[in-house]
Amino acid sequence: MATDSSANISTRRLGAEFLGTFWLVLGGCGAAVISATFPQFGIGFLGVALAFGLTVLTGVYAFGAISGGHFNPAVTLGLAVAGRFSWGGVIPYWIAQVVGGLLAALVLYIIVSNAADFTGVGGFASNGFDANSPGGYNMIAALVTEIVLTAVFVIVILGATSPAAPVGFAGIAIGFTLTLIHLISIPVTNTSVNPARSTAVAFFAQNGAAGQLWLFWVAPLVGGALGAIVWRALFGRD
Amino acid sequence: MATDSSANISTRRLGAEFLGTFWLVLGGCGAAVISATFPQFGIGFLGVALAFGLTVLTGVYAFGAISGGHFNPAVTLGLAVAGRFSWGGVIPYWIAQVVGGLLAALVLYIIVSNAADFTGVGGFASNGFDANSPGGYNMIAALVTEIVLTAVFVIVILGATSPAAPVGFAGIAIGFTLTLIHLISIPVTNTSVNPARSTAVAFFAQNGAAGQLWLFWVAPLVGGALGAIVWRALFGRD
Amino acid sequence: MATDSSANISTRRLGAEFLGTFWLVLGGCGAAVISATFPQFGIGFLGVALAFGLTVLTGVYAFGAISGGHFNPAVTLGLAVAGRFSWGGVIPYWIAQVVGGLLAALVLYIIVSNAADFTGVGGFASNGFDANSPGGYNMIAALVTEIVLTAVFVIVILGATSPAAPVGFAGIAIGFTLTLIHLISIPVTNTSVNPARSTAVAFFAQNGAAGQLWLFWVAPLVGGALGAIVWRALFGRD
Amino acid sequence: MATDSSANISTRRLGAEFLGTFWLVLGGCGAAVISATFPQFGIGFLGVALAFGLTVLTGVYAFGAISGGHFNPAVTLGLAVAGRFSWGGVIPYWIAQVVGGLLAALVLYIIVSNAADFTGVGGFASNGFDANSPGGYNMIAALVTEIVLTAVFVIVILGATSPAAPVGFAGIAIGFTLTLIHLISIPVTNTSVNPARSTAVAFFAQNGAAGQLWLFWVAPLVGGALGAIVWRALFGRD
Repeated sequence: MATDSSANISTRRLGAEFLGTFWLVLGGCGAAVISATFPQFGIGFLGVALAFGLTVLTGVYAFGAISGGHFNPAVTLGLAVAGRFSWGGVIPYWIAQVVGGLLAALVLYIIVSNAADFTGVGGFASNGFDANSPGGYNMIAALVTEIVLTAVFVIVILGATSPAAPVGFAGIAIGFTLTLIHLISIPVTNTSVNPARSTAVAFFAQNGAAGQLWLFWVAPLVGGALGAIVWRALFGRD
Repeated sequence: MATDSSANISTRRLGAEFLGTFWLVLGGCGAAVISATFPQFGIGFLGVALAFGLTVLTGVYAFGAISGGHFNPAVTLGLAVAGRFSWGGVIPYWIAQVVGGLLAALVLYIIVSNAADFTGVGGFASNGFDANSPGGYNMIAALVTEIVLTAVFVIVILGATSPAAPVGFAGIAIGFTLTLIHLISIPVTNTSVNPARSTAVAFFAQNGAAGQLWLFWVAPLVGGALGAIVWRALFGRD
Repeated sequence: MATDSSANISTRRLGAEFLGTFWLVLGGCGAAVISATFPQFGIGFLGVALAFGLTVLTGVYAFGAISGGHFNPAVTLGLAVAGRFSWGGVIPYWIAQVVGGLLAALVLYIIVSNAADFTGVGGFASNGFDANSPGGYNMIAALVTEIVLTAVFVIVILGATSPAAPVGFAGIAIGFTLTLIHLISIPVTNTSVNPARSTAVAFFAQNGAAGQLWLFWVAPLVGGALGAIVWRALFGRD
Repeated sequence: MATDSSANISTRRLGAEFLGTFWLVLGGCGAAVISATFPQFGIGFLGVALAFGLTVLTGVYAFGAISGGHFNPAVTLGLAVAGRFSWGGVIPYWIAQVVGGLLAALVLYIIVSNAADFTGVGGFASNGFDANSPGGYNMIAALVTEIVLTAVFVIVILGATSPAAPVGFAGIAIGFTLTLIHLISIPVTNTSVNPARSTAVAFFAQNGAAGQLWLFWVAPLVGGALGAIVWRALFGRD
């Protein structure tokens, strides 16, 4: 995870971010759309939380050595603010992440539109507040939740990838942090903490999610930067 | 975890305990309050057990190298009794833990009070016995459960962080021990084994949890010390 | 996992693939057939997803050092395409995998036919589309799902076992990838991504699964090869 | 796990087996008795499977370096048959395991008898067949299930602790194998694969479990020895 701060943003690294974010959206949103609400035997919010976390856990072990394993614009920003990633890499990474996420949402659309009872994608695992919040939480709850949880996410990433942390375990810690974030907050916003994930499914959703997408860029990015600032204030550069 | 027994209790270390306990209460109690009982798709006691464990698993990898990763006054006491932590650090750690937990409970209060159907926090994931026990267990059950489970918790911590244990795996072992403790005992006391966690939500709970809070200081502290004594009696100092 | 590309396919290695695939089918399909739909307390799709992943996680730690831990003809093909496994080993491995899977299905048949209410094995956790898809997905959905998910499976395997990845964690990453694949796709095809697993239970199933078995050889094999090609195109040989 | 074959069975080692088996029964059977069937939010068979696995995962990291972390007479026998444990240690280990399990069952009895609605312990998470099988499986199913699953358990233990396996991961592999075994077989026998666990709760159960206890010594011991024999036949001494 993200210890590389060189300015050399290669095709290899962008490919890794593209594939990793593809996997995050296909796995996390796919589990939510296809399996969460299956009658009787569906995986529920617990299964979706596990799925999102495992996309990152597995993605970090698969691609972390190549790109740092961000798969998330808010993480990329947070790492840049913390001095662990080059500012020049931020926009290329964001583009690779968003494009990877969109392709995953397209694949997911193809799959679900070939179910016998398909009548439309509905919310398509998109993020939202008010009427688009699973539990009817308002915009204030959404902002607080997304900012705080993204901040903690970046803090855990910075800690688990610091030189003092045990080598190799970062993927487990970071992946399970994303599971935990979902265990807390699916009822609030359907859980974003990742603008690329939100954008990918908002593009297809039929519930007006695109109109609330701004919050799922603003809050995670603010939270990611805030996490990095808190980390540096308390613990210094490493 | 807790191999540092120096007397130098720095801001860095207290900051790590503050953040880690903040994360424990926000993640564990947040999952319980927001997601456990969501209609049809809620995460239930299994999801809450996983959430509590993952707060510690992730917190140990993020902050363990800085503070030892206690996040729990009973763990801090147990480690001091076992000779693995300085007695001078106990009270500062306890304060950082309780303040971090209280801030998390405040953030959680802000989020849940912004749900459309909010009418009050109710039990707010607080710990209790008799009428405040999810399964109607009495004070004797609560005392036995909290003492025994905290003792085992400290014993596992002492074992998993001993020099003979494989390096780096302590966070997994300790976090999943907390998950297991919750899998056993949520019906009994809603599971504490952590006075800071109990205090944080008792402050906001509307079910009289504050009146039973004494037990969730006494029993975990007794259990933590007992675990350390059993460990030293059987296995010696390391 | 699969860093051995020698041509020497010993009895030890075939024995490991036999046992590992036996375990995969007994554990994954066993959990599905025996425990998934148990009234009230059954493990559902989430438990089945966990079971399949844990067969591979545990099998890799038990047998990975001996055979590479494929347990899956599509993985063996993908690793050969990627240049990480000898072409001469492909057919012997496939045979060991299919025979191991069939023996597991036989053991499973013996167990379930000794339940008090046994009236037949029914679908027996077989894979299928249209009427044999749990969620009524058609052949296009099945093809896309099985190809894409097997491709990602092989990509994660190649990444997690590359020299740059942290040593020892591949079993966790690969096993949990299979859990994640099941969290996404049980409703679509009952999830194969593994022709040996599909063949084993199709042999016993009473729902016509054998007639659709061709898809669960073609799609995973195409996906496995595709994953290897994508990996090499983006990241080169290692 | 069990690489020590010295004849010196010290108090330290017996203490570790005592505590580890205490934890296995308190955690696994405790989760089953207290939390599995809690109305609406109970953890079900999935939670019980996770609990049993986590008792061993955490116990191996806590006590494995001291005693080898068997916590199970069938594992101790299997390791002796495989040449990885001294024959002279078998009976002392068995005694420590059974006594530890019995003490855990007593603690569990004290807790549950202090619930408001307590009327008796009933099955108390005991193992059984026919009328005592959760899914009504007969003695043949019970024998096959317990023998095969204990055999695989010991095979995974031998593999994951062999010199060729990655260092430190054995606790994860072995613990999750026990979770997987439970995911498969709780409906069949309530899952033993461990005579100490079966004995501990049979002592208290009110459903006649003691009369079927012989099977849960015979089958796991046969399976444990069988696993060791298969391992040595296929893979030799290490």
